[in-house]
Amino acid sequence: MSKLAKEKLVKEITSMEDDFAQWYTDVCLKSELIDYTSVKGCMVIRPYGYAIWENIQRILDGMFKETGHENVCMPMFIPESLLQKEKDHVEGFAPEVAWVTHGGSEKLEERLCVRPTSETLFCDHYKNIIHSWRDLPKLYNQWVSVVRWEKTTRPFLRSREFLWQEGHTIHATAEEAQAETVRMLDVYAEFCEKYLCIPVVKGIKTEKERFAGAVETYTIEALMHDGKALQSGTSHFFGDGFAKAFGITYADKDNKLATPHQTSWGMTTRLIGAVIMTHGDDSGLILPPAVAPKQVMVIPIAQHKEGVIEKATEVYESLRKKFRAGIDVSEQSPGWKFSEYEMKGVPVRLELGPKDIEKNQCVLVRRDTAEKLFVSLDGIEETIEKLLEDISTSMYNKALERRETMTYSVNDLDEMKDTADNKPGFIKALWCMDRECEDKLKEVAGVTSRCMPLGQQDNIEGKCVCCGKPAKKLVYWGKAY
Amino acid sequence: MSKLAKEKLVKEITSMEDDFAQWYTDVCLKSELIDYTSVKGCMVIRPYGYAIWENIQRILDGMFKETGHENVCMPMFIPESLLQKEKDHVEGFAPEVAWVTHGGSEKLEERLCVRPTSETLFCDHYKNIIHSWRDLPKLYNQWVSVVRWEKTTRPFLRSREFLWQEGHTIHATAEEAQAETVRMLDVYAEFCEKYLCIPVVKGIKTEKERFAGAVETYTIEALMHDGKALQSGTSHFFGDGFAKAFGITYADKDNKLATPHQTSWGMTTRLIGAVIMTHGDDSGLILPPAVAPKQVMVIPIAQHKEGVIEKATEVYESLRKKFRAGIDVSEQSPGWKFSEYEMKGVPVRLELGPKDIEKNQCVLVRRDTAEKLFVSLDGIEETIEKLLEDISTSMYNKALERRETMTYSVNDLDEMKDTADNKPGFIKALWCMDRECEDKLKEVAGVTSRCMPLGQQDNIEGKCVCCGKPAKKLVYWGKAY
Repeated sequence: MSKLAKEKLVKEITSMEDDFAQWYTDVCLKSELIDYTSVKGCMVIRPYGYAIWENIQRILDGMFKETGHENVCMPMFIPESLLQKEKDHVEGFAPEVAWVTHGGSEKLEERLCVRPTSETLFCDHYKNIIHSWRDLPKLYNQWVSVVRWEKTTRPFLRSREFLWQEGHTIHATAEEAQAETVRMLDVYAEFCEKYLCIPVVKGIKTEKERFAGAVETYTIEALMHDGKALQSGTSHFFGDGFAKAFGITYADKDNKLATPHQTSWGMTTRLIGAVIMTHGDDSGLILPPAVAPKQVMVIPIAQHKEGVIEKATEVYESLRKKFRAGIDVSEQSPGWKFSEYEMKGVPVRLELGPKDIEKNQCVLVRRDTAEKLFVSLDGIEETIEKLLEDISTSMYNKALERRETMTYSVNDLDEMKDTADNKPGFIKALWCMDRECEDKLKEVAGVTSRCMPLGQQDNIEGKCVCCGKPAKKLVYWGKAY
Repeated sequence: MSKLAKEKLVKEITSMEDDFAQWYTDVCLKSELIDYTSVKGCMVIRPYGYAIWENIQRILDGMFKETGHENVCMPMFIPESLLQKEKDHVEGFAPEVAWVTHGGSEKLEERLCVRPTSETLFCDHYKNIIHSWRDLPKLYNQWVSVVRWEKTTRPFLRSREFLWQEGHTIHATAEEAQAETVRMLDVYAEFCEKYLCIPVVKGIKTEKERFAGAVETYTIEALMHDGKALQSGTSHFFGDGFAKAFGITYADKDNKLATPHQTSWGMTTRLIGAVIMTHGDDSGLILPPAVAPKQVMVIPIAQHKEGVIEKATEVYESLRKKFRAGIDVSEQSPGWKFSEYEMKGVPVRLELGPKDIEKNQCVLVRRDTAEKLFVSLDGIEETIEKLLEDISTSMYNKALERRETMTYSVNDLDEMKDTADNKPGFIKALWCMDRECEDKLKEVAGVTSRCMPLGQQDNIEGKCVCCGKPAKKLVYWGKAY
């Protein structure tokens, strides 16, 4: 491989160590995931970025349908009066919505916000269609974009408009709704771990961090390369709060009027940010095989020589029946191509030159480890299939190992402050569940509660990291995106 | 089948002859395609309606990708100054856009419209990414919703927000862009005819009906059951007008600065309206097999008898490997179920009772013709596969025959007026290409030009139907949705 070409391209990406934020922006732009626009805080998702989202969508949508969910589409606008029906909800969202005030040249009688989330619209619809216990549950989802008027924005992580799915379900009983909330958290965790190769901590948010209008918010939290946490998906249990605010009732089996219980859950294009910051390196993206737009790129070597392009094309044609494969026969040098597809995070590069053809072999190069493998062209599909599986496992394990290494336990405020200042990562510490202590930890150590991991007992033994009083919960703290 | 149940359900749908508009609304609501919302002019697309859209999306998206297109995602907002860059375009769209004026509690420095279409956003992006002939063409598409502030709205046909795909491409030469425009019109026509079983007339719009900013607008026009035309898809050739307005240039192979040429093309949820009004009848929907959410519904007869549900489930399980199949084992009567799935337009009903099981047979009922077939359970998958193909062909032929029967030719203004008043359908007539005659036909006969069919010579022989002067083009006229 041409060292010069490699150096030239790598130069264009700031190194992680020098400036992680700039590295992130460089990767987003140079690997052509996004482009900035004339619309402040909004981005173009370019074909390479959108193809990752399409793969995420396809897999997640399949998981939703397997668990009995159906897709619908609600309007993108919410009349102000509808947004105001649930008190906590409107308080949480009103400060950050975009308002439509005019249609054409006419002023609207009532202004409309562009949905920041659609609980109110789903409730408005449920009220129309739910009458009897026979109408329950409704297990709905929609794939749309939402708008939140953020002050500071970053590609994928925080933008004024972002793509997501929002699941909204309504059930006869609190128990069923509660079970759905946890079930979808499990779907989210499985998706992140199996397909994005990102280990996550499943937990419950503190009251302070809870979704506006929820009784309980469940979350999965991932740890990025720089030691910051990224909330990667949330699942909310609403109890009957929304149903009461919207007057949704149903006749139960005894023909008595009852109030249903609800959930909602969402994952967003933020996941692409999580992929970049979990797996990427100084050469660019490293994409998990399950969502990579191209899983394997065929690069002919000395392609001007007789038969090389033909053989490479033949290999490519056989691969693309089974994988998302690509071939680059452009006039660029092999070195340029190597750097290009490294930057774009293609999991496997397949090199094929005249000598390889003579020996009926090719060279496979793993993006995640840079390992080179000389393998026979016989059974190349099976070889690559197995390699992609290995890559997935190994990417997951590497991320898990890093997270474990970067997870610390602390016992008092000094330790918390010291760790927060000097050791980026998750910080495990006990907490008394008083809001005051949570606020103080933010003030003193700059950390927020990420979640209270699932599976712990109600009253844990030990002392609150902040006030020293008896603790109630183990909490993961950290700095977060 | 229980006659009572049938009558009960059919009563809920107004007959087409009594009131076609009410029939249409009834079908949309009763077959649970949509629901109205608190947001004026916007609808909920319910699971059954959205599943049709998902099938349309999947097939069309496959056709786009096969022809080399990539998906992207642009912001939903357009700054006012950006919308104003192309003069004709802003004149066409500004009167019907929704304006965002506030983000949270702050007034925006510049107001943003919610995209009515995204030419301006694509141009803004092209300007950033196109520098050399090597960067061309870009063949982009996006699946999003757009907003147009319509005064009178109807489900699927005209709503303030609708779902669509918008293709946007940019090419080195006018010839390439022109070829793309026609190629995508052909894709649209093929999709309508092959998958929606809707025959269409391919043609060019008159200047009056042209898309705001286009040099030429191509269209496919379908004829609905009531004799009104429905514009079902359009493909626009822009020449270099947008590129010039936005200052998009590239260095050609001789390193000279050149201006690229553009196209755009779109199809919308309106297609679902076309399906309803082309194929439906007084019992409800009749769905083309390619986009039907369920292609075959299994209905057990006398399901309380031993072994019936088991056998029906066994048949269903084998069918769902190959088809979008369903089974209804609810406590409702068979008659109720027959009416329900007739209303929902499921192409094939499979009835299976104790006597059928004894004979190793079942009853297949076609939704389109009500024909009953007694067939063996051996090879039932192949039988149904063939039947679905037959249904598609026959639905297309029926629609084509009706369109032919409802297409008239007229020679002068009296004939035009008489036909327009008394014979709903397409009206073929020659035209001198003067805008005045086009306006007069609208005023006198209430018809608009639908399109100038492709393939005709530049100067056709004969006289203009309006002024009697030498004609230039054959035009399809009609009343339209």
